[in-house]
This record gives sequence, C-alpha cells and structure tokens, in this order.
Amino acid sequence: MSELEQYVVGVDFGTLSGRAVVVRVSDGVELGTAVHDYPHAVLEERLAGSDRRLPPEWALQVPEDYREVLRQAVPAAVAAAGVPASAVIGIATDFTACTMVPTLADGTPLCEVPVYADRPHAYVKLWKHHAAQPQADRINELADERGEAWLRRYGGLISSEWEFAKGLQLFEEDRELYDVMEHWVEAADWIVWQLCGRYVRNACTAGYKGIYQCGRYPSPEFLSALAPGFESFVPDKLEHEIGQLGQVAGTLTAEAAGWTGLPEGIAVAVGNVDAHVTAPAAQAVDPGQMVAIMGTSTCHVMSADVLREVPGMCGVVDGGIVAGTWGYEAGQSGVGDIFAWFTRTSVPASYTGAATAAGESVHEHLTRLAAAQEVGEHGLVALDWHSGNRSVLVDHELSGLVVGLTLATRPEDVYRALLESTAFGTRVIVETFRDSGVPVEEFVVAGGLSQNALLMQIYADVTRMPLSVIDSEQGPALGSAIHAAVAAGAYPDVPTAAKAMGKVRRGVFLPDEARAQAYDALYEQYLDLHDHFGRASTTMRRLKAIRRDAVAGREGKVS
Amino acid sequence: MSELEQYVVGVDFGTLSGRAVVVRVSDGVELGTAVHDYPHAVLEERLAGSDRRLPPEWALQVPEDYREVLRQAVPAAVAAAGVPASAVIGIATDFTACTMVPTLADGTPLCEVPVYADRPHAYVKLWKHHAAQPQADRINELADERGEAWLRRYGGLISSEWEFAKGLQLFEEDRELYDVMEHWVEAADWIVWQLCGRYVRNACTAGYKGIYQCGRYPSPEFLSALAPGFESFVPDKLEHEIGQLGQVAGTLTAEAAGWTGLPEGIAVAVGNVDAHVTAPAAQAVDPGQMVAIMGTSTCHVMSADVLREVPGMCGVVDGGIVAGTWGYEAGQSGVGDIFAWFTRTSVPASYTGAATAAGESVHEHLTRLAAAQEVGEHGLVALDWHSGNRSVLVDHELSGLVVGLTLATRPEDVYRALLESTAFGTRVIVETFRDSGVPVEEFVVAGGLSQNALLMQIYADVTRMPLSVIDSEQGPALGSAIHAAVAAGAYPDVPTAAKAMGKVRRGVFLPDEARAQAYDALYEQYLDLHDHFGRASTTMRRLKAIRRDAVAGREGKVS
Repeated sequence: MSELEQYVVGVDFGTLSGRAVVVRVSDGVELGTAVHDYPHAVLEERLAGSDRRLPPEWALQVPEDYREVLRQAVPAAVAAAGVPASAVIGIATDFTACTMVPTLADGTPLCEVPVYADRPHAYVKLWKHHAAQPQADRINELADERGEAWLRRYGGLISSEWEFAKGLQLFEEDRELYDVMEHWVEAADWIVWQLCGRYVRNACTAGYKGIYQCGRYPSPEFLSALAPGFESFVPDKLEHEIGQLGQVAGTLTAEAAGWTGLPEGIAVAVGNVDAHVTAPAAQAVDPGQMVAIMGTSTCHVMSADVLREVPGMCGVVDGGIVAGTWGYEAGQSGVGDIFAWFTRTSVPASYTGAATAAGESVHEHLTRLAAAQEVGEHGLVALDWHSGNRSVLVDHELSGLVVGLTLATRPEDVYRALLESTAFGTRVIVETFRDSGVPVEEFVVAGGLSQNALLMQIYADVTRMPLSVIDSEQGPALGSAIHAAVAAGAYPDVPTAAKAMGKVRRGVFLPDEARAQAYDALYEQYLDLHDHFGRASTTMRRLKAIRRDAVAGREGKVS
Repeated sequence: MSELEQYVVGVDFGTLSGRAVVVRVSDGVELGTAVHDYPHAVLEERLAGSDRRLPPEWALQVPEDYREVLRQAVPAAVAAAGVPASAVIGIATDFTACTMVPTLADGTPLCEVPVYADRPHAYVKLWKHHAAQPQADRINELADERGEAWLRRYGGLISSEWEFAKGLQLFEEDRELYDVMEHWVEAADWIVWQLCGRYVRNACTAGYKGIYQCGRYPSPEFLSALAPGFESFVPDKLEHEIGQLGQVAGTLTAEAAGWTGLPEGIAVAVGNVDAHVTAPAAQAVDPGQMVAIMGTSTCHVMSADVLREVPGMCGVVDGGIVAGTWGYEAGQSGVGDIFAWFTRTSVPASYTGAATAAGESVHEHLTRLAAAQEVGEHGLVALDWHSGNRSVLVDHELSGLVVGLTLATRPEDVYRALLESTAFGTRVIVETFRDSGVPVEEFVVAGGLSQNALLMQIYADVTRMPLSVIDSEQGPALGSAIHAAVAAGAYPDVPTAAKAMGKVRRGVFLPDEARAQAYDALYEQYLDLHDHFGRASTTMRRLKAIRRDAVAGREGKVS
C-alpha cells in the first residue's frame, strides 16, 4: 500500500441500517465495510416507550440512529480497511428519500426537544410513511385543475411520500409543532448538516421530492388554495441554499471528527439519494445509459442532454443525477417482492422439499425449472402490478393478474411468467422514454436481483438491449465514495471520478434474436392487458373498493 | 322385510368402474351396492398386449369389461342387499356418453372379432376420446355454412366427443373396418342389448349425441358434402328403433340371467346417461328444476315444457331427460378439477402442514379459512376457464385468470375466488336460460361437491336460488333403478316413480340477501372479464397458439 494513496468514505443510509465503505481514490477498490443496524428500526406501531398506537400507514424513524451509524460503522469500516484514518480525504452520504426531519433553526430534530418527544409528528417521516395520501390527492387535483406546469415534470403525479404532502400533513394535524419547526429537512441533507455544520439542500431531493423546478417551488397562490395558512411553507420551512451533487457542502466538524475518527476539516459532500448515487458507481452517467436498481422494487435512473416530458416518469430534474445534465427517474412498484410473495404463498411442499433436497433455495429451484422452458411454453402472461403501477400508469389501485392458467400449469410456469411480467413492465418504461425523445441504449443493472441469471437474460431478450451489471455489492456506498472524492478535489467532476472508481461488467447478457422475437408476441399480449386494465377497464379499481368495503364491514361487525 | 316387497337393480357404468345398487320399489331405499373396476380401465397409451402407441387424445375401452360388471357387481349388490333375487322385477342401466361401440349385426364388438383385435378403431371410443376434433371442426364449419337448423339445438357446436365426429374419424382412418361395421352403437344401448338381446337406441343419447331432432338425422346431402361416401352413414350404421326413457327395451335373456343371477324375463329398461338419469333420483323432473351434477366438471340438466334455443347449451332434446318434455343440457368444463389443481400446485407447506395438524384435508383447511371472510374481502375475481368454457361460450381455447392479486393475497383468498368463479359461471348459464325463455327456479345439486357447505352457500348466494341437495351417494344408479321400476310397470311413469323413490333435501342452502348483493358487485366484474376475454379479446386464444408453437419448437429441437 503506497503511502501516497488517498481514501474516501461513503455512507449509505438504508431503511433499516447504515453501511460505511472505505474506498481507494485512485481506482475505487473497496477496502473495508461495516454495517450498523438502526436500534429503533422503523416505528410503525407506536413511539418508543409509548402505549399510543400510531395510525395506519405511518412509518417513523429516530434521527439519533443515523448519528450512531457515523459513530459505529464509519470507524469500523476504516479499521476493517486497515488504512490510516489520516489518509481519508473526504466523506459523502446517500439516504433513502423522501425521508423528512422537522428541525429547529440549528438542525435539532423536534423529537429531541424533550417537550415534543411524545408527539409523532416530531419524528422523522420515513419514505414509506404513506399517511399523507389524502394530502397528496388534494395536491394532485388542485395542480391538475390549475394546470401547474411542474406537474408534468413528475409524470402527472406528486407522491404522498414527498416533501409537500408530508409537510401538509404536519401542518394540518399538528399545527403547533408545524409553527415551532424552523426547517423541513431531507434526511439526506440533515446527515450532511450533522457532519459539516452547514445546511445545504441537495439538487437531487430538492428536485425529485421537493418540486423544485427551474429555480422555483410551487407558488404561494397554489399553496394558499391548497390550505389557507400554508402559503408561506416554502420561504418559512423549505427554501434554502441548493448544492449540486459532488460539490462540497462543508468540512468535517470537530464533533463529527470525534464521532467518526476521521480528520477534522476533510471535505463533506452535498447529500444524495441511494438510487441516484448508484449511477456513477456503475459508470453509467452518460445519456442513454439507464440504471435499474432492482430489488424488492425497481428504480430506474438515467441522464440525458434533453428535457422531455415522459408520461408516467417519477421526475426529471436538472442535475438530479449528475450536475449539468437532466436526470430522469422512473420506477416499478413491485419486482423482487412479487417473486418473494409467490415463493412464500404459492409453492407446494413437493417443490420446497425438492429444493431442500437439491441444496437450492426455492427461488433457485424454480429458476432452474423455469430456465428449461422455451419462451411462451407456459402459455401465460402476468401483470406485475401486485403493488400497483408506478411508471408509466401511476396508479396504485391497480393489482396483479395472471392469465392463461390451465390444469397443466405448474409453479415454475407462473414463476417464470412473473419474472417476465416485470421485464415487460421495464420494456414499457424504456419504450415510453424512447417515444418521448429520450433514447435508452444500454441497460445497467444494480441491486440484488442482478444475481439471477435467468431474470437478467429475460430482461436482455425482452428489451433487446445489452445488459451490463454493476461490479460491486455496495453500489450506493461506492457511489457516495465517488462523490466524496470529487468533493475533496481528487477528480474534477463525477463522470471523471466514475470512470476511475466505478465498477461495471458490460454486456454480460446479450439479447438473443430468436427469443426476442418470441417475446415480442408475448409482449403484445402484455400490452393489450396493460392498456385494458390500466386504461380502459375499471375492474381493478372496483375490486379494491369492494375489498375496502368488505373489510370495513367486517370490522364494523367485530366492533 | 315384507314378502310382498319388490326390488329393482340400477347399474351405473362410469369411466373406470360399474356400480350396481339394489333398491326397494316402494320407497327407493337403497339396500345393497357393489362396485366392479374395469380390468382394462381406459386405454390411452396402447392396446392390451400391443407395443403400438396410440396417437394423442385417444381413449378406448374394452366392452368385455362392461359385461364383467354384470357378472360381478350385480350379484354382489343383491347379496349385500340380503333380498331374494326372485323379488327383483327389473333392471336398468346408465352409461357415460358419448361412448361408442362398433359392432357386427348381432352386436358383437369388432374388437372381439379376432382378426380385428389389433386395430384401434375396433375398440370402444370412450367419451373422452378427443382425437376426432378435426372431424368435429369440419362438421361445425359445414353446418354453419349450410345453415343447418339442427346446429342451434346444440348451442351452435357439435362436440368431437359425439357420434358423428367419432364415426367420421372411423370412416376416414380405417375404411375397411368402417365397411365391416354393421352398427355404430352407444355403449348405453349396447349394454341393454347384452341384457335383453334387442337393440334399441335411447332417446337421450340419440338426441344429445346423435343429432336426432324432430325424427331426423343430418341429411345425406350434408354428409356427402362432409365426406364423399359418408352420405349413407345414417341408414347403414346409425338409424334404428328409438326407445323413450323408462320404456321396456326387452326382457332379461337366459344368458344375462346367468351372468347376473336375476330372474330370466324381468324387464330391461331402455338405456340412459349418467347425468340425465340423476334428475329423477333427485326428484327434479319438473320444469324449472335445474340439476347440477357437480364433480370434476359440472353437467346441468333441466326439463321444460317449451322448446327454446339457448345460446351455448349442450343440447335440447325431446324426451332427453323425461319422456314428453324437452330436456336441456349445459355444462362447465372445469369445476372440482380446478380446486384440486389449486390445492395440488399452489398451496405452501405451511398450509398443508397446518391442515395435517388439524386433521383436515387441504380442501377442508382452505375452506375453513375462506369461510371466515366477508364477500369481496379478498379483492379477487377469477375466470373458471382452466379447461376452457363449455356453456355459454363454447370455446376450449379459453383459459383461467385471476385478477386483483396483491402482496397480501393468501392461498385461501385465491381458493375462495376459484370457488366463486364457478358459481359465477353457473349464474351465467342460469341467466342465459332465463333470458332465452327457459326459467330456472330451483337449483338441485348432485355429485361429490355437494359435500362442501361453503361452496353450496356461495352458489345459493350468487344465484339467489334455494339449493336442494340429492340425498343419495349413488344418484345415477338410483336413477337407473327408478327407470327399472317404471319399465317393470311398478309406476306409470318416471315422474311418479321419482316422487316415490327419489331422494332430495330441499332448500338446504338459502340465499342471504346481504351476501347476494355483495356478490352482485363481484359478478358484475366477472361478467366484464367474461365478455372481454370470452368475446372481445384474442389474448387467451393467442396464448394457446404461442404455447403450441413453443412446445412444437422444443420438440423440434429435441428430435
């Protein structure tokens, strides 16, 4: 190890834990890593030490858990790397989003103010806190009614997960706390504030989650029409200096140096989001390179030189992935969790027993059986909407479907149809981008599902694109490390750093033309079902309503 | 036991065995029963003692197996009943249909002529022999083209299972054997011929399976257009004296008395079919009483005073169920076999384990869990077309579908949705009959599925009809016994005998109006899916074609 080598630390704050990785600046080699689980995990039932039940759809976190990652995981990763802490020149972080912290002027979370510790709204609202849906519905209706131009930048829908919906919920449900709150802060920025003592809003979450477009937020007129008194939400609680990704937010404070064991004064990069930060880690920051982070759900991010309105995208943001280009985001609500649901609920003992006997997981067993089939042999098509459809239909009242079932249908048949359905869903997104003037040339996969070779080959065949696979198991943390290197001045910009430090295996899966043609015929049927159930028919929406009525009826009988 | 009591024997010839039952004439009490399995079962792979493989879709039987039932099961049933054989006054039989025997002039099956014993076409073609589909397709196309009036009596479709399609296959594939054949005989009539030495075609199979309508068969012009040389099929091979159900075909021969141990000279009734003969066993021979024989599939039979053309019915036949009224038949291709397929392929070990622990079958376990739900709570609707749709769409290219799936969907949810889907399918049939001017007032269930109380209640709620249940576990054999009593002169006609000897529990399941209303909302969604996939969309048909191409492609690669 050269004495001249320099290192950076990337920290990835996930839903249940934070992971730190120590990376060599010169070539991106990952030298040490450490994970720290959040002691409070996710508060969905009740606050710590409280008997009061949280309402449905709430999901809170405790900010001290994030600081604990800095204290535990960072020094552990440095120790594991076996490098001198003094050789670390920068640190950067990425976070789940949209995850929001209400704070005082100095960044103190309201839940850390003893008098507010028993108030749910004083805590961090995690990305998957979905209790602001009524507020989101009103935002969307009003924006549509008023023809707000920014709505089209979000595929026509503002999510209940985002800054305005969650902020409006706080405003309406705990006005006293709302008035006390000085800043409504993305956790992605709050953690940077903890590290460097400066509050900088990163361009990524400000754009994707904060409706910050062309230098402006939604107008006071809009907000006033939404809820009288809410018109000053932007200047009072939200608006703040914007930092571009890869810029320096500040330098490590003495206090944070004490927590992390890193040198005081090193560069702290502007905050970032786990999905978006993965693009440079996969060397995929050029236009046309779509990165799919495939896990329980899939997030698609892609840079482009052009600004286009793509129907059903999650958002397009100036500098949202890489400073200086337009960053596009799209998503599939359910992917790996659909496969997990199927293996958990729909596979008989004869299969799970055979898997065990063969030393395979149920996934591996079904994959092996499914891989032996010709395209179309199972006679099935599924719709991958078990968690609704994010892109391009933007409708969470949709649901899953399997068609073509016969008495000869086997578990591996349905399993394969489900794998394929998510590939078809991806193809719809890719084609919608292309049809909107945003070409997609290469598909780069990150996330746990890249391990399934059958799934990857299906995606290559269905999309007729070469598939590249990130060559790191900690894509987000590596992406953060790349940003740390840029913030520290080791590279002039993120694309340059990505070339040196990012890791990808290109063209690992190539489309087979015969299979691609066979898939065209199945895709045609998928599209028919997609447009019928997603656009023409009300069946799925009606079934959800019938289900809600039935559940309410049952609960009415019980109570 | 009074010395004056008289008895009758009913024999039900099923797909794999024959069952004889001894019944008291005065009140229908079943005193003894015996079953004899066919030694050759169903020949689907090869002829006995032959290495030659039968083509796909073939299903043959050996007629000597039927005689063996007379020799074994009848005396055993009489012995089990503990009654003197001398007190038996008549015997009647019912059979699967359409099951065809090619014979010489004296009724000798061609397969019993040694020189033909190695020719597949010399054997009995069982109802489920489906290799005559190309012939059936041509019959339907030509009949439609020529506007043959009889086609509408069969819901617009002649089945590949029936007399003309199977006969045409024999004509085209083994002309020598066709020319040697003197009679093309329903097994239902052949067994009666064995008992009494007389060949009488029963009105039921002649009408439903033999296209015998208003005293006429399809014309020589039609048959000639179908296949030159086939024009004399009717006079040469088919046409023969017709007997009404419940009439005497003849008296028991000395030879048959020797086989059965019954008195020579007792009445032998005209042949009948297993489904149709069940109606009097369930005391359901009045207009408006629809009998559903619910097992792996469902057959619906109902008498009416009016002749109407009901779309998608299997057939309407003068005296087809009871002499003097119009007998209607409809069907659902898959019912119990869909539930069996689901429990076999789609229920995880945790459920099968819990069922075992609770001492329940998987069906019972799922039923108990499903029964705890409110109507609509699972949020699902299924289409019960895993084996295609017989009535009212008459399309075997259709397939099964489940819509509304989410990550919260459990096995008992899908199971209940499948139960409901078959009830919705029945409601479509009932409403089609009503809309065509053939009212349905009561739903009478026979067959194994009547044991499932949840399923029965769902049918009552979905159809808004009181459900009666046959009170015999051997409905067809009891029905035959009733016909034997009429043939023997103990009752003037079948309806009178049915009142005395039939057994039914009326109104066992009554519709609940609140649940019926909840089901109306789900049925609306079922109908939408029914009409979309059954009438508007080509998706299911395309998927079957894609599957066939894929399988052919794989087999091409292997060979």
